Amino acid sequence: MRAQKKSAPSNERLAEIYRTAAQIILRKGYDATSVNDIANALGMTKAGLYHYINGKKELLFDIMNFGLWELDEEVAAPARDIADPAARLRFIIGAHARLVTRGQGAITILVDEVTALTPAQQRKITQSKRKYFDFLRGTLDELKAAGKMQDVDATAAAFSLLGMINWLSRWFQQGRALKEEQAADEIVKIALHGLLRPSKLKAVDRNQ
Amino acid sequence: MRAQKKSAPSNERLAEIYRTAAQIILRKGYDATSVNDIANALGMTKAGLYHYINGKKELLFDIMNFGLWELDEEVAAPARDIADPAARLRFIIGAHARLVTRGQGAITILVDEVTALTPAQQRKITQSKRKYFDFLRGTLDELKAAGKMQDVDATAAAFSLLGMINWLSRWFQQGRALKEEQAADEIVKIALHGLLRPSKLKAVDRNQ
Repeated sequence: MRAQKKSAPSNERLAEIYRTAAQIILRKGYDATSVNDIANALGMTKAGLYHYINGKKELLFDIMNFGLWELDEEVAAPARDIADPAARLRFIIGAHARLVTRGQGAITILVDEVTALTPAQQRKITQSKRKYFDFLRGTLDELKAAGKMQDVDATAAAFSLLGMINWLSRWFQQGRALKEEQAADEIVKIALHGLLRPSKLKAVDRNQ
Repeated sequence: MRAQKKSAPSNERLAEIYRTAAQIILRKGYDATSVNDIANALGMTKAGLYHYINGKKELLFDIMNFGLWELDEEVAAPARDIADPAARLRFIIGAHARLVTRGQGAITILVDEVTALTPAQQRKITQSKRKYFDFLRGTLDELKAAGKMQDVDATAAAFSLLGMINWLSRWFQQGRALKEEQAADEIVKIALHGLLRPSKLKAVDRNQ
């Protein structure tokens, strides 16, 4: 059993509430968004919404936790079972990109808006993000040690990957989209051709 | 003479005001930031600051215009003089990355916060961003037509590049930095190895 399991939303309705609330908060800003705005967008009464949430202040933290829980559940946890680092990297990029394009886009951006949180909440969110970042960079370190990566800095590469993937959410929000699956595939292609040295080309590359 | 020239800040002091204001607005949010906060951070009186700005509402628009003017002046304009699309792409990525790491980071993020603007201001900013995006994608289209690009969608590639570059600003803000020049170089390497098919490897790639 994973520890993150306890952050799991009790049902799909809660996930929908988080995704919708994230979109409204992103559009209007956290301060300007009321619980009423969120209830209206969901076609619920304010009282009905309070059945699911504890208040606006807790909601922001809950949304971020949900986003990071989903990231662990759908990306990091299955990736940890993949022994080969190149296959693991391919899985991480594709699964993370699909998560962003499939509706988690607003949450992805919101996860960086930690300033409205309490210091304790900020630490918790930063810790979860750090854990994911370290996992991604660790995969790149493994690839580097195996001689399978281009000669680039692993930290820079990890940030570049996150930048490419997270930017997808803006792109999809703006409606200038490829199909979701296609976008995820393109990101995988661009990232892997940038990071992986195709083994059959090694000899040629060494002569450059 | 370029039309954008008229957006040029009259001096370095104005550029410093815009960069500092952008950092404060990002940290506190636009609504919670007062003109006093910005004046204090700059070590100026409020009256002194009003010598440079017309008010908080105009300031946000002015900061974005400044950021996009700098992008044109330091990246797009010199890039337009580079005939070879591969050399042009290399220049665009490096120059844009250096602009972000060198202190324009906060402005880079703020340029996406258009919701606080009037509709007319939003149109102006969106138009400038669009122009830059189209220029970048046009360079990728040229590379593709010349058979020098990997088999990836040019729009996806352009967004991926912008994601990598813009994410640098968060990374630098968070203080987990390589040296500025080194970060820009790494981004160039990662992006180019991902997008450009090295011509001497073409024959090998065709056999894959």
